[in-house]
Amino acid sequence: MSEALLSSITRVPILKVDRGACTRAIDALAIEEPLELRLRWGAATGRREQALSITMRTPGSDLELAVGFLVGEGIARGRQAVVAVRHEGRAVRPDGTSNVVKVVLAEDVRVDVTRLERHFYTTSSCGVCGKTSIEALRMTSHPALPEGSPVISGEVLHALPHILRASQATFDETGGLHAAAVFDSTGHLLLLREDVGRHNAVDKVIGALALTDALPASAAVLLVSGRASFELVQKARMAGVPVLAAVGAPSSLAVDLARQFGATLLGFVGRNRFNLYSGAQRIRFGKPSP
Amino acid sequence: MSEALLSSITRVPILKVDRGACTRAIDALAIEEPLELRLRWGAATGRREQALSITMRTPGSDLELAVGFLVGEGIARGRQAVVAVRHEGRAVRPDGTSNVVKVVLAEDVRVDVTRLERHFYTTSSCGVCGKTSIEALRMTSHPALPEGSPVISGEVLHALPHILRASQATFDETGGLHAAAVFDSTGHLLLLREDVGRHNAVDKVIGALALTDALPASAAVLLVSGRASFELVQKARMAGVPVLAAVGAPSSLAVDLARQFGATLLGFVGRNRFNLYSGAQRIRFGKPSP
Repeated sequence: MSEALLSSITRVPILKVDRGACTRAIDALAIEEPLELRLRWGAATGRREQALSITMRTPGSDLELAVGFLVGEGIARGRQAVVAVRHEGRAVRPDGTSNVVKVVLAEDVRVDVTRLERHFYTTSSCGVCGKTSIEALRMTSHPALPEGSPVISGEVLHALPHILRASQATFDETGGLHAAAVFDSTGHLLLLREDVGRHNAVDKVIGALALTDALPASAAVLLVSGRASFELVQKARMAGVPVLAAVGAPSSLAVDLARQFGATLLGFVGRNRFNLYSGAQRIRFGKPSP
Repeated sequence: MSEALLSSITRVPILKVDRGACTRAIDALAIEEPLELRLRWGAATGRREQALSITMRTPGSDLELAVGFLVGEGIARGRQAVVAVRHEGRAVRPDGTSNVVKVVLAEDVRVDVTRLERHFYTTSSCGVCGKTSIEALRMTSHPALPEGSPVISGEVLHALPHILRASQATFDETGGLHAAAVFDSTGHLLLLREDVGRHNAVDKVIGALALTDALPASAAVLLVSGRASFELVQKARMAGVPVLAAVGAPSSLAVDLARQFGATLLGFVGRNRFNLYSGAQRIRFGKPSP
């Protein structure tokens, strides 16, 4: 396996449930880490340098990511616009990579700062940046998660994606909508919302809980139709939701955060299986293997 | 169908290819539109009002989306933090909704503006805001799309997702990575990149093309493993890529934009089928139905 791929994947011990059998396993997770993009331009007219954006990304091909991003934003047209692109910052790894990429633009590349600022707007679907924001989140006062409850059984969990799908199917003809739903610990569907953006679907569900004065939702199970990113774990945490279940895979940072907060995180939840990444105390297993 | 759902879906005429048969059809698309969030706070200490963020979302449950977003950011803890939440702006629809939501916070809610600014950072995965940015994009000089080429056949298209999957499978054990790949018109894989964020995977591919001086990529077909959002169409356009194919569904705004730019947009590309949303002149059909 190449160096680049090694840095894209991490392995964590998990519990794997498959047709009632619960076993310990090692699971491969896609790494999710922040990347800061620094831009330097105006070599002829007086140098300017600016930290342009931070994105959560899987490490690997970082220099390409930075340049491709600038192409998409209309700043660089191609190779000749870029004088240099390199990793930098204080935390450079042995292989020379880091979580900061600097792009030095050619003299003739014009950067319209006001246009940049108009374009690089802010959104909830970005998540907040890795370590810094984990620290910020720790400082933020948020409702404590109840230690034991809700206790949800594996059997109930297996049924949730089907309920989500069936409820969604009545009005989702597009195949293009993410869904987020809140269940109680017996598997009763309380709320379902959809959106092209999965973060938006979760925001809608949490907003609905807030507007009905149901926060913190300390007995709720939140199910999402896609993958579990760092930011979805964070959103669930801020709403006091103790159990986050995803039909897809979690990222490495999602698992890290859930473990730090003592939240329950499940991935690949399906009719016969699920993976448990954190918070086993809230799951009642059917037949644990010896 | 309820009012809320009507506003989440739009219908467009497309060409549907299924096992070699090509028919005209009407396809339902998830609507993708910008939502601006305005926040008012400090009723006691001197009012402040600020446009906080713009997100691309599917209309419906907008008030919940706004409040849920504020919960996730630690600004609102629950119902009592919100004095009022309503649609406003100049373009209010007959049903009272619009693409602007204002939230008025209770007197005792403190908003730390510096913390807000630190949190609401900018990222490539946000896309840029609907109409405004479509206009901005029109003004941006970008390479013209070649009218006819690449001409790619339906048969070649059907094979691409399998090639993507097979190439991805060699190193994706996580189930959590999006992929983007560039093919030539004969279906030969030129480049593949992966990331937890699908926009990042596309940025990596385009950056790789830029760094090898291969932009504009006017003979390329870009395939993405997920859905086609507005922003992916835009990124392809900026790189001069004439054909964007998605394994998943496109959003309404993705289709609008592709049609405006004369780009070819395909969705639900699979072994036996695909939907063609725009740019039929670049597709060679096998056996068109009479």
